[in-house]
Amino acid sequence: MKEHSITRRRFVAGTLATGAAAAAPAAAEAAKRKRKHKPRPTGSVRRADVVIVGAGFAGLTAARDIRSAGHSVIVLESRKRVGGRVWNHDLGGGVISERGGTFVGPTQDRLMALAGALGVKTFDTYDTGDNVYYNGSNRMTFSDTGPLGSAPPDPTTAAETAAVVAQLDQMSQSVPVDAPWEASSAANWESYTLDRWVKENSASPNFQALVPLATRPIFGAEPRELSLLFTLFYIASSGNEQHQGTFERNFDTRGGAQQSRFVGGSQTIALQIAARLGSRVVLGSPVRRIVQGPRGITAHSDKVTVKAKRAIVAIPPALAGRISYEPLLPFQRDQLTQRYSQGTLTKVAAVYDRPFWRAAGLNGQAIDTGGPVSATFDDSPPTASASRGPGIIFGFVGGDYARSYAAMSAGARKAAVLGQYAKFFGSDALKATSFFETFWSADEWSRGCPVGIPATGALLAYGPWLRQPIGRIHWAGTETSDYWNGYMDGAVRSGERSAREVLGEL
Amino acid sequence: MKEHSITRRRFVAGTLATGAAAAAPAAAEAAKRKRKHKPRPTGSVRRADVVIVGAGFAGLTAARDIRSAGHSVIVLESRKRVGGRVWNHDLGGGVISERGGTFVGPTQDRLMALAGALGVKTFDTYDTGDNVYYNGSNRMTFSDTGPLGSAPPDPTTAAETAAVVAQLDQMSQSVPVDAPWEASSAANWESYTLDRWVKENSASPNFQALVPLATRPIFGAEPRELSLLFTLFYIASSGNEQHQGTFERNFDTRGGAQQSRFVGGSQTIALQIAARLGSRVVLGSPVRRIVQGPRGITAHSDKVTVKAKRAIVAIPPALAGRISYEPLLPFQRDQLTQRYSQGTLTKVAAVYDRPFWRAAGLNGQAIDTGGPVSATFDDSPPTASASRGPGIIFGFVGGDYARSYAAMSAGARKAAVLGQYAKFFGSDALKATSFFETFWSADEWSRGCPVGIPATGALLAYGPWLRQPIGRIHWAGTETSDYWNGYMDGAVRSGERSAREVLGEL
Repeated sequence: MKEHSITRRRFVAGTLATGAAAAAPAAAEAAKRKRKHKPRPTGSVRRADVVIVGAGFAGLTAARDIRSAGHSVIVLESRKRVGGRVWNHDLGGGVISERGGTFVGPTQDRLMALAGALGVKTFDTYDTGDNVYYNGSNRMTFSDTGPLGSAPPDPTTAAETAAVVAQLDQMSQSVPVDAPWEASSAANWESYTLDRWVKENSASPNFQALVPLATRPIFGAEPRELSLLFTLFYIASSGNEQHQGTFERNFDTRGGAQQSRFVGGSQTIALQIAARLGSRVVLGSPVRRIVQGPRGITAHSDKVTVKAKRAIVAIPPALAGRISYEPLLPFQRDQLTQRYSQGTLTKVAAVYDRPFWRAAGLNGQAIDTGGPVSATFDDSPPTASASRGPGIIFGFVGGDYARSYAAMSAGARKAAVLGQYAKFFGSDALKATSFFETFWSADEWSRGCPVGIPATGALLAYGPWLRQPIGRIHWAGTETSDYWNGYMDGAVRSGERSAREVLGEL
Repeated sequence: MKEHSITRRRFVAGTLATGAAAAAPAAAEAAKRKRKHKPRPTGSVRRADVVIVGAGFAGLTAARDIRSAGHSVIVLESRKRVGGRVWNHDLGGGVISERGGTFVGPTQDRLMALAGALGVKTFDTYDTGDNVYYNGSNRMTFSDTGPLGSAPPDPTTAAETAAVVAQLDQMSQSVPVDAPWEASSAANWESYTLDRWVKENSASPNFQALVPLATRPIFGAEPRELSLLFTLFYIASSGNEQHQGTFERNFDTRGGAQQSRFVGGSQTIALQIAARLGSRVVLGSPVRRIVQGPRGITAHSDKVTVKAKRAIVAIPPALAGRISYEPLLPFQRDQLTQRYSQGTLTKVAAVYDRPFWRAAGLNGQAIDTGGPVSATFDDSPPTASASRGPGIIFGFVGGDYARSYAAMSAGARKAAVLGQYAKFFGSDALKATSFFETFWSADEWSRGCPVGIPATGALLAYGPWLRQPIGRIHWAGTETSDYWNGYMDGAVRSGERSAREVLGEL
């Protein structure tokens, strides 16, 4: 990857263009045009050492760290709220359900440390009793204390599940989390979709039917939409500096990424940071244009223009690609953002008077090879018990199911979800007191969830450009993280890393 | 694809949102915010029946047809020139070399008809004498009148080339050009990259090394970046209503897509249409925002605001996704644009006193499994002969080679290209009188060439949204064409089709 190191030095010399772009008549023409059309500041002009685009977990963490180091920040956020893909839904009476990112688990140290510093406490995800597995017409229950964890110990699939997960885990160990494109098999693995690799490396259609059941909640995607290299990177990423990542840690509750929840809801972390930042966070101000020159950055939003020494763009690559940059970014960065689409995920939740499934010996976790819901969790408040409500079950609708679900009427959608819940937990599941849905793909400022997904070949072609600063612009967001990419912990890590980069330059 | 038909009816009823988006609190919040922030018109306000975004072959063809039918149009173009990915380079003295789309061939009827109507004449691409094939250290010459056409009749690869091309052609016959996602094997073919399929269906590494040599010029991509379904669609698309598409027609000169050229250069067609449209084409005015309401469209560009009854957005999906739409488009359309990246292609050209290769019995066409150039053509003016110059050889640098090429110094790039040309055509190739490069991926208003490429799974998930009108917005551009998708002919077809759609509504 010779392109890797060219940009920064060039910028210092006064141009951001790569050698190639500088020589290109097309680029030269564009640069000339840009010089003529100087953008005018929008609304008021504010100044800070660092302007941060996006008040999700990444941007807010970066802002907190930079301010702690004694420098000034302004965070520009498109939405009228902070938290990004993490969003509390207030059910009244102090009860919160999470519309987006919810859980925290082992090796997610940076998220835990941040929550601890802010005084946000965790509690165990309800995990007493059996999981439900629905395979077409058959329902079975099982304990997640077995060797397969949250994966079903179906006799027709168990051996292959264990073998394939072990093989993926083993392969992932050769993928460097900070540079997956440098894996020795990277080119070969980029030629496979996960779907194709699974079909080459397993025999049972029953097992193969389980794979999308994992990818729909974890990636918001079908196996055919995932590069094998990216999948292996994601597995490697599900750990930390001390503990190798594993695929199981992605889908397990006990000992995995769904092990714990935050008191007050996960968005509380973002709300706490934002409260301390006060007017340094500007809501409702999408950034449309970022201009950088030898002395600084100007970020133009719909509401305010910010002049700063450095910028951190803390939004997903697909959205970062929609900002106009002057001068143009190197083409490699732009082509990366063209190849990094947001997953397709809808979260649904039903609220009940009581968590009735608990008395029946069920933990509220179910998986279904059918749809629309692929996996459920007990999202009841920490105060809930078999006799005290409310009880909440949320479900993930992802990939093809998210697409067909969106085409249904509101009534049919609710009936389909509650019908599945009744299959899992009994007919009491039909008596929901409320039902709500969060269509992350229809959200203007996420355009999909839970994570950005590179097309086959994209990591190999442009991976280094995910994170490499370009002049005075630094990149954050969970998609740029080495560990726990795609999770809240990855967002926090990326915020910390980008803050370190910027602090080294101020 | 139940999503296919929902939007239009909903829009008539006063909302553009899908059922899903309308029910989504996130979308509702966004809609509410939008109503408050009414965009102010930029610069002057003009009115027309139809506003067209993009003055490439698609947008200009649409404008011409709509105006011929007696309706008014305004075309907003980001660049200071028309033609899009088609661009003449004036070498002086009436000599033109093409920086972008160049050729026309059999079954490209709509481009031929348009050129004919405008009085733009064609001439044969120089194709007398032998082609050169360079395979690592071995050079061979061959005639393209053989059964493999422009593919090399290397004894180590010929049988497999013929068999694999025949198999791809046969498979492509079950792909409907107007709806490739409806092919009965679509889901299976979306699980394969072209690379994986080739490796499963061929044995010889020598043959496999030829495949990127085709995909780099044709798609600007490596085989690992291409969905098999999209590749088969592209093959099916390389024909017309009377003649089945074939892969050969993509890479052949004799009887294929490189058979003929336009007198005065291919951009002449765009320049002629634009001259007739006069001030109806506004250059240097990138459209940033399109607002549609029950009575019309408002398109906001940097230079002018246009109010119209209908809009045609005639730019690649990846660029169309960067415009802000109010109300938001259905999420399916947005996710499609996130999954449709522009290829990576650089075109290089060397100019010589004479087309010296002709006297040596060479036609100027060469292919090389090495790089940076994968394929060359004689781009000399129609007046050139063995004794009369200038002689021009252009070359395609695509996919991984375009990426590594961009990292080289200007001097190293020129030396590498001329060094290849010398291997192909002899040491006279080192004596270029000029050398120029066009980095399409670094071009702000193309962001890549020659065509948009859907990620694996994208056509199956969102294919219908490529072309389906959304309220008063219609879509054109070569990526939306059934036949000759990715070529100038596809652009013209898409312009004609979008004009018919709009005329049916005016």
